[in-house]
Amino acid sequence: MSVETRKAVVLLSGGLDSATALAIARSEDYEIFALTFRYGQRHEVEIEAARRITSFFKVTQHVIAQIDLRAFGGSALTSDIAVPKGRTPDTMAQGIPITYVPARNTIFLSFALAWAEVLESNDIFIGVNAVDYSGYPDCRPEYIEAFMRMANLATKAGVEGRQQLKIHTPLISLTKAEIIRRGLYLGVDYSLTSTCYDPSPAGLACGCCDACTLRLKGFAENGLNDPVGYRTEFRHSI
Amino acid sequence: MSVETRKAVVLLSGGLDSATALAIARSEDYEIFALTFRYGQRHEVEIEAARRITSFFKVTQHVIAQIDLRAFGGSALTSDIAVPKGRTPDTMAQGIPITYVPARNTIFLSFALAWAEVLESNDIFIGVNAVDYSGYPDCRPEYIEAFMRMANLATKAGVEGRQQLKIHTPLISLTKAEIIRRGLYLGVDYSLTSTCYDPSPAGLACGCCDACTLRLKGFAENGLNDPVGYRTEFRHSI
Repeated sequence: MSVETRKAVVLLSGGLDSATALAIARSEDYEIFALTFRYGQRHEVEIEAARRITSFFKVTQHVIAQIDLRAFGGSALTSDIAVPKGRTPDTMAQGIPITYVPARNTIFLSFALAWAEVLESNDIFIGVNAVDYSGYPDCRPEYIEAFMRMANLATKAGVEGRQQLKIHTPLISLTKAEIIRRGLYLGVDYSLTSTCYDPSPAGLACGCCDACTLRLKGFAENGLNDPVGYRTEFRHSI
Repeated sequence: MSVETRKAVVLLSGGLDSATALAIARSEDYEIFALTFRYGQRHEVEIEAARRITSFFKVTQHVIAQIDLRAFGGSALTSDIAVPKGRTPDTMAQGIPITYVPARNTIFLSFALAWAEVLESNDIFIGVNAVDYSGYPDCRPEYIEAFMRMANLATKAGVEGRQQLKIHTPLISLTKAEIIRRGLYLGVDYSLTSTCYDPSPAGLACGCCDACTLRLKGFAENGLNDPVGYRTEFRHSI
């Protein structure tokens, strides 16, 4: 019996979550088409991380799409507003942080939808997470459901009944510690990933932005050291 | 009494429909923020048309966002597939044409959503049309409704109850002839617009692609000549 390989478009930022989502898609026997954005983010080293991850996992194709979200401003990740530092998971949970990029996941999923339509793929993977989600509205299950409904009305394949798009969110109800355990089980090499919102030019993580704080907590809860490099001044303090 | 001006993001391709949608938004006293995309389209002269239109209407801001839809392929408007010529409105209505760009309106509306959020605007205008719509799935009312539902779950402002986004589709139930009448009433100078899918380098319209055919029919039904230039070989045949 010949088994047809299903194609999946995987949104890959280069961080811990999306690397794990990619590993999960691969473990479910999807052929992987990884999609990364150069969107004017301050932390461009994550694009290098995405390249390392797609090379490690030998994906079929990796597109790095260039879009300019800086034209609209409004986020610490794309403009000159300072990235908040030193917050705890509890203080992060209050309100939506300045690192939120307006409509980012909507834009990313729209591009993934376009590519899925061209590939005749029914499956998009995104590593959003509603537990340690840092307060982003476009990481919630009800948002993902609404996007899926819209997407199935948007495309030629949807209208012609050839496509019933599914957005897979395998991490949505996992804690960061659970995501890391799952990824390690699937062979993810987390030293390849980049999570920090404000890394040094050499790619060393700051250790105290929201993303680093959640990541370090996840490794600590598993009794593990994070394999990525942190800045010296931070390493002295832990 | 001071009246606060409401801001609207208007998707402006440079064609007849979006120029009319912009004029309608302005007639409803919105402050206009026009958004045009350079998306690897073959007919880049429409971007020049968009510039002429925003200058004519003295909009507050005009952003031309660069995105690369060619990375995914799959459309005659962005790759080397031939644009269909010489079809009638009846033959166009059958199926979705090769000029359909996968998920284009979803991507465009996602960027408009991002900008609207930064501007604290509740209003996006898009010149989609479900009558002479050339068979594009993402021009139908049910699609627009689904996008709006999704958008109101996607944004910080939506979650915090500060935003209830509305996508205005003032042309959705008008014929091309009605759109032209409405635009002329509002002072649109259609000589500034560019509709053709396959214009000459000098910007002359081909006169026989789907877009030209619908446009010429609209002017003819109003007993008017289209003020834009057509190629000589075509002009001889009408």
